Amino acid sequence: MPQLRLALSQIDSTVGDLTGNAEAVVHWTRHAVEQGAHLVAFPEMVLTGYPVEDLALRSSFVEASREAVRALAARLKEEGFGDVPVVVGYLDRSERAARYGQPAGAPQNAAAVLHGGEVALSFAKHHLPNYGVFDEFRYFVPGETLPVVRVHGVDVALAICEDLWQDGGRVPAARTAGAGLLLSINASPYEVDKDDTRLDLVRRRAREAGCTTAYVAMIGCQDELVYDGDSIVCDKDGEVIARAPQFSEGCMLLDLDLPAASPDPVTGVVDDGLRVDRVVLGAQPLAPYDAELDGGYAERLEDTEEIYTALVVGLRAYLAKNGFRSVLIGLSGGIDSALVAAIACDAVGAQHVYGVSMPSKYSSEHSRGDAAELARRTGLNFRTVEIAPMFDAYMAALGLTGLAEENLQSRLRGTTLMALSNQEGHLVLAPGNKSELAVGYSTLYGDSVGAYGPIKDVYKTWIFTLARWRNKAAEERGQTPPIPENSISKPPSAELRPGQVDTDSLPDYDVLDKILQLYVDRDQGLEAIVAEGFERELVAKTLRMVDTAEYKRRQYPPGTKISPKGFGKDRRLPVTNGWREGAQ
Amino acid sequence: MPQLRLALSQIDSTVGDLTGNAEAVVHWTRHAVEQGAHLVAFPEMVLTGYPVEDLALRSSFVEASREAVRALAARLKEEGFGDVPVVVGYLDRSERAARYGQPAGAPQNAAAVLHGGEVALSFAKHHLPNYGVFDEFRYFVPGETLPVVRVHGVDVALAICEDLWQDGGRVPAARTAGAGLLLSINASPYEVDKDDTRLDLVRRRAREAGCTTAYVAMIGCQDELVYDGDSIVCDKDGEVIARAPQFSEGCMLLDLDLPAASPDPVTGVVDDGLRVDRVVLGAQPLAPYDAELDGGYAERLEDTEEIYTALVVGLRAYLAKNGFRSVLIGLSGGIDSALVAAIACDAVGAQHVYGVSMPSKYSSEHSRGDAAELARRTGLNFRTVEIAPMFDAYMAALGLTGLAEENLQSRLRGTTLMALSNQEGHLVLAPGNKSELAVGYSTLYGDSVGAYGPIKDVYKTWIFTLARWRNKAAEERGQTPPIPENSISKPPSAELRPGQVDTDSLPDYDVLDKILQLYVDRDQGLEAIVAEGFERELVAKTLRMVDTAEYKRRQYPPGTKISPKGFGKDRRLPVTNGWREGAQ
Repeated sequence: MPQLRLALSQIDSTVGDLTGNAEAVVHWTRHAVEQGAHLVAFPEMVLTGYPVEDLALRSSFVEASREAVRALAARLKEEGFGDVPVVVGYLDRSERAARYGQPAGAPQNAAAVLHGGEVALSFAKHHLPNYGVFDEFRYFVPGETLPVVRVHGVDVALAICEDLWQDGGRVPAARTAGAGLLLSINASPYEVDKDDTRLDLVRRRAREAGCTTAYVAMIGCQDELVYDGDSIVCDKDGEVIARAPQFSEGCMLLDLDLPAASPDPVTGVVDDGLRVDRVVLGAQPLAPYDAELDGGYAERLEDTEEIYTALVVGLRAYLAKNGFRSVLIGLSGGIDSALVAAIACDAVGAQHVYGVSMPSKYSSEHSRGDAAELARRTGLNFRTVEIAPMFDAYMAALGLTGLAEENLQSRLRGTTLMALSNQEGHLVLAPGNKSELAVGYSTLYGDSVGAYGPIKDVYKTWIFTLARWRNKAAEERGQTPPIPENSISKPPSAELRPGQVDTDSLPDYDVLDKILQLYVDRDQGLEAIVAEGFERELVAKTLRMVDTAEYKRRQYPPGTKISPKGFGKDRRLPVTNGWREGAQ
Repeated sequence: MPQLRLALSQIDSTVGDLTGNAEAVVHWTRHAVEQGAHLVAFPEMVLTGYPVEDLALRSSFVEASREAVRALAARLKEEGFGDVPVVVGYLDRSERAARYGQPAGAPQNAAAVLHGGEVALSFAKHHLPNYGVFDEFRYFVPGETLPVVRVHGVDVALAICEDLWQDGGRVPAARTAGAGLLLSINASPYEVDKDDTRLDLVRRRAREAGCTTAYVAMIGCQDELVYDGDSIVCDKDGEVIARAPQFSEGCMLLDLDLPAASPDPVTGVVDDGLRVDRVVLGAQPLAPYDAELDGGYAERLEDTEEIYTALVVGLRAYLAKNGFRSVLIGLSGGIDSALVAAIACDAVGAQHVYGVSMPSKYSSEHSRGDAAELARRTGLNFRTVEIAPMFDAYMAALGLTGLAEENLQSRLRGTTLMALSNQEGHLVLAPGNKSELAVGYSTLYGDSVGAYGPIKDVYKTWIFTLARWRNKAAEERGQTPPIPENSISKPPSAELRPGQVDTDSLPDYDVLDKILQLYVDRDQGLEAIVAEGFERELVAKTLRMVDTAEYKRRQYPPGTKISPKGFGKDRRLPVTNGWREGAQ
């Protein structure tokens, strides 16, 4: 059987940074070639970053991407890698856009095989996702070929991400065309439990394609999306051959025995109208060699560590890619800001984390103490700014009462954070969790200020789990647990009036979060939620709170998505909305 | 020739308010029937409002819509209108979703012909828009029929909005099927100059369909979208027969002579795979009657008045549909807040408009005077809150300088507005214009606070035009011009430091706005803009300002869209974005 040493380059890339991304491709190609790779693959749209959103509609950017891929091909040859095929995703434009009702030259989510200093073959994604966070029908013309590249006597069929997720198309076409390897390049955003789904998918598609199937994943972060890595190779029976680590940039190399390409290969149109587009880069198998590399099998993280890691990686990448080195957090002494601080310390180091305690007359002694204790435990930079003088100035001018007085305190803190951010250059982190965002239990321009919300997609019950896990992990490593026990164990409170606790206004979080998961993450209506055993009145009240808080969420900063449906591009509800579940 | 009295009900509807929208349909059907209508049409998705966005993904809402359309049919019969066919748009689900890779029962943008207490015929939009503000591939399964309803011996082919905007599909199918009338129900958002485009479209499609073509428009507002009315009827030669007024709810009635349906009508599949779905509600032509109603021809507003009206209508509807009666505006004495105040006074009456002057030590005397003068001219409620005490409290605590000090003043004003809003219940309006939003010339949580931004899609040069027009219109009506001349004529300034004017940081607005229009509204890159005659360095600097302000726009409130591309669902760019036009 012919052999191939395959390199799956599981790397990060930055949207729009064509130069930097090309450099990364060169760097990791060098690494792979030095390890003896015969075929090197990079993730979906690695050259442009993913998703590029409306940059795809700017022809200057599309042309720059096309030019960058040609320049990259030449560069790889100059560097001495011209004889190793390299698969890179990029943004192209279509010659056949009119067929899909798109303007001439409409963009494509494309990939190229670079070889000999040139683009040896290019193709576009056939199946386009247009659900959840994806809007690919808005941008892209679908590909109409089954690309096959013959490398050292092996026919390698190529696919892009959604091509694997949807039935039909390139997977059965690869079987029909007699491919020896199906190679898919991907940029699949992280969600809890998605790694299991992905593994099952790759195993199933390998059996359907009837050949070894390699899935190269992206890692890193783009705005709300985290890419968790987890590249996978399965054999034709769906058995896992190799699996790369989660959340870790690197290159998985493995030696594969693969069937020889047919001397009389299938041509023409195969499944789903896909036309076989075959390029022969090397017809002769390699001289037999001793297989040395098996790619390894990295163990999965368990769920809590996986989520925590996603939050750290997401924040770290957002800061780095947007040019920030330090963050600023208002520390209330409560669990949310404490967890955000712990995540920030893990992301950029405590020396770059600035915490501010901003007590008011309603702040309890233990709150002040808990914030200071957090600072001592983590080593973050800590200061206290009393908001009483500002509060008194406003109250003298405006004579506020009730909710206006409560919100004022929160907004004075927001203004303090933004002032310090402007003065010192730190990026402000918003500490809101998903439960709060869902029901609107936050103050617009108050505790909601910030450029990034690291835990905005984490329900409150999970906040506790993550905090306990982080402390336990520290203990196991012989480190100081970052989060004060009191921040975890005391009843949650906004402390905007005497004796206030969250349960004054909200159901217990364990009940609330279950209702929210059904409504927000799973689009269930009132009747369906009541049928799960929740009290009708409580459900109706909760759903109404969610609906009427939409205007607040619109102005909330972005933050790492970890759930099947985050408050971002995932969930698009009108602000003006007369629909009330159960009110009919 | 058979005759028909057609009623085009150009009405508003509220997203999600199935009960209220059904009431409106009953009300306007009564009106039409009392005027002798033989066929009554309402806009696209009138029963659910449009666009429903992710409400379409909630099966409880889809089922409620389906139930509501059946209940409406029964109700219309009870009210005595059972023998008049009524066409209403609603949300349905598809039996054939799998064909489009959608889950079973996936939703459809549908319409029903209600007759005899029942749904006599239903169908779904065939062409789905998925560009600009539209995401219909995210939600809907396309319709596969050419619906034809025979009314008093006339075959009426039906279509929904985009069915007219795209080539092929129901327009040629209507000709093939021998329709006597093509009736399209629509919800087409307002843009400057779109009325001309729409008129040309309806004329062209009438010629292509080879029959009289009626276009019923929606009016009102949904979040950022304004529907401007402008229902149109053209004859088969594309000559305009009738045209309804812009921005005005009502019912256009007209008598039409139409060709008799063929005794041997076309059946089966016609153009684009559409299967003719014909229902005969009345095979016999009416006894001849004297045509009395010609529908009228309402003159168009000229551009400036049209835009101003769109802004007033958009704000008024947003307030009404979200349960607000009054608004609060920070009045700087500058033109932006003055124009917003004038729009607000026209939208809800000066007695419901609350203005606050919040001078700082850098506020000029004329600024204070101009704000007060605006209040005198319009009669809005006016007060002054000095921000010096709050400013001093912050400066004593934080010792801010430079930009941090400038932004502080703006944020103190934002906090003041929100405090008054919480205390008194007014909705805060954000006064930012499109030029400012584009280049980020605003303070996050400062002048950007608010639940709605009435002029966020209006470039600064147009702000002047609108202000002058509004004053002139007042003069022509013998009223006091609302906006002080000084607010219009003085150099724009944020007044956050001594002697500051906008042109310290920005190009002249007439140059800036032209560059922005090319970049923002038309997706032109740097080279293309330079080729239009602008200085390269200025263009590069401007584009960079636009790119790096994306994070601010994400947190800006919604506001009325009037341009081809507003900062909202129309334009979706990443915050994390390494692409810099011209830096390569």
